[in-house]
Amino acid sequence: MAKNAYDLILKVSCPDSPGLVSKIANYIASHNANLIEFTQFADSVNRKFFSRLEIDTSESKVSVDELKEGFSVLGKSIQANWHFRQLPHKTKTAILVTKTSHCLNEILWRTQEGELPIEITSVIGNREDCRELVERAGLVFHYVDFKEQGKQDAFNEISSILNAEEVNLVVLARFMQIMPEALCSQYEGRMINIHHSFLPAFIGANPYRQAYNRGVKLIGATCHYVTSDLDAGPIIEQQVHRVNHFHSVHDLTRMGRDCERAALAKGIRYHVYDRTIIDGRRAIVFSD
Amino acid sequence: MAKNAYDLILKVSCPDSPGLVSKIANYIASHNANLIEFTQFADSVNRKFFSRLEIDTSESKVSVDELKEGFSVLGKSIQANWHFRQLPHKTKTAILVTKTSHCLNEILWRTQEGELPIEITSVIGNREDCRELVERAGLVFHYVDFKEQGKQDAFNEISSILNAEEVNLVVLARFMQIMPEALCSQYEGRMINIHHSFLPAFIGANPYRQAYNRGVKLIGATCHYVTSDLDAGPIIEQQVHRVNHFHSVHDLTRMGRDCERAALAKGIRYHVYDRTIIDGRRAIVFSD
Amino acid sequence: MAKNAYDLILKVSCPDSPGLVSKIANYIASHNANLIEFTQFADSVNRKFFSRLEIDTSESKVSVDELKEGFSVLGKSIQANWHFRQLPHKTKTAILVTKTSHCLNEILWRTQEGELPIEITSVIGNREDCRELVERAGLVFHYVDFKEQGKQDAFNEISSILNAEEVNLVVLARFMQIMPEALCSQYEGRMINIHHSFLPAFIGANPYRQAYNRGVKLIGATCHYVTSDLDAGPIIEQQVHRVNHFHSVHDLTRMGRDCERAALAKGIRYHVYDRTIIDGRRAIVFSD
Amino acid sequence: MAKNAYDLILKVSCPDSPGLVSKIANYIASHNANLIEFTQFADSVNRKFFSRLEIDTSESKVSVDELKEGFSVLGKSIQANWHFRQLPHKTKTAILVTKTSHCLNEILWRTQEGELPIEITSVIGNREDCRELVERAGLVFHYVDFKEQGKQDAFNEISSILNAEEVNLVVLARFMQIMPEALCSQYEGRMINIHHSFLPAFIGANPYRQAYNRGVKLIGATCHYVTSDLDAGPIIEQQVHRVNHFHSVHDLTRMGRDCERAALAKGIRYHVYDRTIIDGRRAIVFSD
Repeated sequence: MAKNAYDLILKVSCPDSPGLVSKIANYIASHNANLIEFTQFADSVNRKFFSRLEIDTSESKVSVDELKEGFSVLGKSIQANWHFRQLPHKTKTAILVTKTSHCLNEILWRTQEGELPIEITSVIGNREDCRELVERAGLVFHYVDFKEQGKQDAFNEISSILNAEEVNLVVLARFMQIMPEALCSQYEGRMINIHHSFLPAFIGANPYRQAYNRGVKLIGATCHYVTSDLDAGPIIEQQVHRVNHFHSVHDLTRMGRDCERAALAKGIRYHVYDRTIIDGRRAIVFSD
Repeated sequence: MAKNAYDLILKVSCPDSPGLVSKIANYIASHNANLIEFTQFADSVNRKFFSRLEIDTSESKVSVDELKEGFSVLGKSIQANWHFRQLPHKTKTAILVTKTSHCLNEILWRTQEGELPIEITSVIGNREDCRELVERAGLVFHYVDFKEQGKQDAFNEISSILNAEEVNLVVLARFMQIMPEALCSQYEGRMINIHHSFLPAFIGANPYRQAYNRGVKLIGATCHYVTSDLDAGPIIEQQVHRVNHFHSVHDLTRMGRDCERAALAKGIRYHVYDRTIIDGRRAIVFSD
Repeated sequence: MAKNAYDLILKVSCPDSPGLVSKIANYIASHNANLIEFTQFADSVNRKFFSRLEIDTSESKVSVDELKEGFSVLGKSIQANWHFRQLPHKTKTAILVTKTSHCLNEILWRTQEGELPIEITSVIGNREDCRELVERAGLVFHYVDFKEQGKQDAFNEISSILNAEEVNLVVLARFMQIMPEALCSQYEGRMINIHHSFLPAFIGANPYRQAYNRGVKLIGATCHYVTSDLDAGPIIEQQVHRVNHFHSVHDLTRMGRDCERAALAKGIRYHVYDRTIIDGRRAIVFSD
Repeated sequence: MAKNAYDLILKVSCPDSPGLVSKIANYIASHNANLIEFTQFADSVNRKFFSRLEIDTSESKVSVDELKEGFSVLGKSIQANWHFRQLPHKTKTAILVTKTSHCLNEILWRTQEGELPIEITSVIGNREDCRELVERAGLVFHYVDFKEQGKQDAFNEISSILNAEEVNLVVLARFMQIMPEALCSQYEGRMINIHHSFLPAFIGANPYRQAYNRGVKLIGATCHYVTSDLDAGPIIEQQVHRVNHFHSVHDLTRMGRDCERAALAKGIRYHVYDRTIIDGRRAIVFSD
């Protein structure tokens, strides 16, 4: 894809029925917009239809707003959920961290590099460890003290920050606290976690220790949407790394960091480029 | 994909222009056929459009022949090359071998398993080594003697066999002779080779020896369409395997066999499921 | 490794202590044998020492028997378990199957190819499906009827066959019955299974269905030693394959077969080349 | 490996002969030092022996200096090249860059994280692009102006900096100038480059463009020692990434960055942990 070849993304999911590609493509063509890429998936088992369109409106005679609003007639007739995203767009994103900085550093670097179209509103930590890295990058770091004020108040504080900054995406970049149900609900489909194991193996604490004890030959990391069901949210991306008997838990942790960085970066990328559609416990990911 | 969800494949390539998805999808919808999968790629640099459609005609009111013939009006108007494939279909395939049997065995197994919809018309060898494996599988083995009759007559004999068997696909499964230009032309886009290196590295003879001497850390295999430009045809699939200093040329050869089997099997699969479109020196591969 | 560079393999495991490499290497050197490869692993957490030696005795003045017997003095003094293997050697191996043939075919092919130094004493099936493949390869197929005679008698029959054939290795090549404890004990460290998931994820039935439902992005297969603790034996090898939302359970099953074949073939290879040492729930694997 | 389990590394390469493991291990044992890990490779084709030892001298009665000096007797008798490295050790390292910062950022991060035991003496750039990143990290950035003073004087300036800082390792982190022969000689075996292709494919300029034009299905990056023979030095590490027809040159460049970062980080790691031995055009890499 050449850069800026498209300026509008449309995601559509609906019950499957004949003629959907034709109907949606016609709508775009009838507004003189140019369909650059049409990706589609028909789940024949559950009879659902999912699609993602990259559209170039630069030669369209109608405004983008008209294009978006006009879709509601078709959208309703096919019982669709749909979502337009006009480009360029930067998703307002808060990053939550605890102690380790590798995932945070990866996101900062890719954002600077222009790979991730996000605006980092702030980084929130329940420890001070990452402050220096954040402030060096010219960003705001909020320290939230879980010990002093207790878990509930701490999460209230986090919630206030997120609300005040009007974030649209929350990234848990090795944040070692379990998110309360209220936040999971509020940011449903907009909160991404990186779990340091190849889920569903080694749910819970110390996955690298568990992996070592079990003698697995591959370790991994899983990027997923957060739901109130711990470590069971829809998986966006997974990465693995081959290991051997001579690797200690310390080695697994070190090599696992590379999996975590890669999986989280890809997961965020797919989300902010509107390449994901959540379908119950699974995520449809139109990966690139 | 549920099995048999579609009974017709359409491949279309043409100059890119607005509205192509809409036009093609409309054609299908207007014939009451159901579009199961629409995969498309717009090459914005060269302004070309490539697409592949899986179509279910079971509830269409017009016959498949009408559907196919009727497409010519649209096809001409968009200056397309197009190709319909009605399912179920088994591609008539000849396999050429020399001494080693691993690629041949892989194809035989996957064919028996139902993974490759091909009909093996015969196996042709310039040595007798693979005869037993072929005949055990209940297939015909032709021995073509290159030494006695010379290269030209030998290739004439091969050509006669291919013509007589009306093959639509020629697979060079580690066939250690350079194909003459006439055969390359006749089977253009229908002759697949497996090269035992990660092309374009190590063109020519003894790639594993070359790889050993160069001290590479990954070896590979490349499945490609055969053109008269040796080892330079469009690449369909590549596989790699990690190696180390302690691996001898013998080890590289052994491990490389696994790459060769996997790459060739995938390459054939993509071809016979009409997932490839040749575009000059490159192959568009709608992989699954 | 050049072929036949060594004719003796020695595996040693013992409590770790200073000077072990020196002591063992001295023993070999003092018998005029040439140490080709010395691989060693010191588990500093559990203070254990594991090693594997490839030895060339062709210029040794003492006989191999003397070399083997003489080791007992050193072996006892370092409290070692040790094992000599004289080459060439073919491990007597029985293969147990049910319906699917892909793992069996892989073993047959690699054995014919000379990659696996095993002698297949027979193939035992609780269904007739694989008989043709086995008999074509010139091998004996035993059908054991589980339905008619019941599970206990069927396993007694299998046990009798294994005893009569004096097998040293039992390979469960997608054998869909749970092995009774008595057989697990008798063939402890000599019975290898291929599990069609990336253990410890998806223990139990229908792992590909489970993987599909969970929406994982990588599927896998695990080759492990069989213990009476189902699917929890020491892991020898694991393989993974990337999958996507558009892959059905049928697709996962197909792609998983490639993981199963590769993982099982490597697992058997490591075992018969004496590259594995079981250490509780883990396997030390000196992979090549 | 538990951290700090060893405090001395010994690398030995010499002509192969019987008893080498025994002789070397005896030397260590006779000085009451504890051999933690003995890795060895006998190249049977060229009759060479390579080994790397991790040694714990904490309970040795002789000093490390005595241990090192005393080895010369054995070393000479087996015609060895050998090298001791006492730990902890930080290799004095200069990093050369041009415009892109991804490789530099990766090294900075891993150094801060404690993964790479190096002391970055300075970063030298022939453009100013990376200055900010370097200075933020509290390091010195030298800008060397190639345009104004010409290539020869510019390299003289670089040489002066390297000499003044007494660097032991030069890392070309996407430095887009060809190193002159004098510097290649001076830092032979101590200068590491990252090449943005899967060598030996796509030598020279614009490898991602070349890869795109050739339609390869995997791109890669190669970390190698620099020799005066451009892009032909001994390979330390290679990484690959799967690509598809829909990836533009821009996409290949983006995905290639991940290969480059990973391959360079591993390559430096292997070098500074004394895991590499150069053997002509190849590198023996005792990877972990």
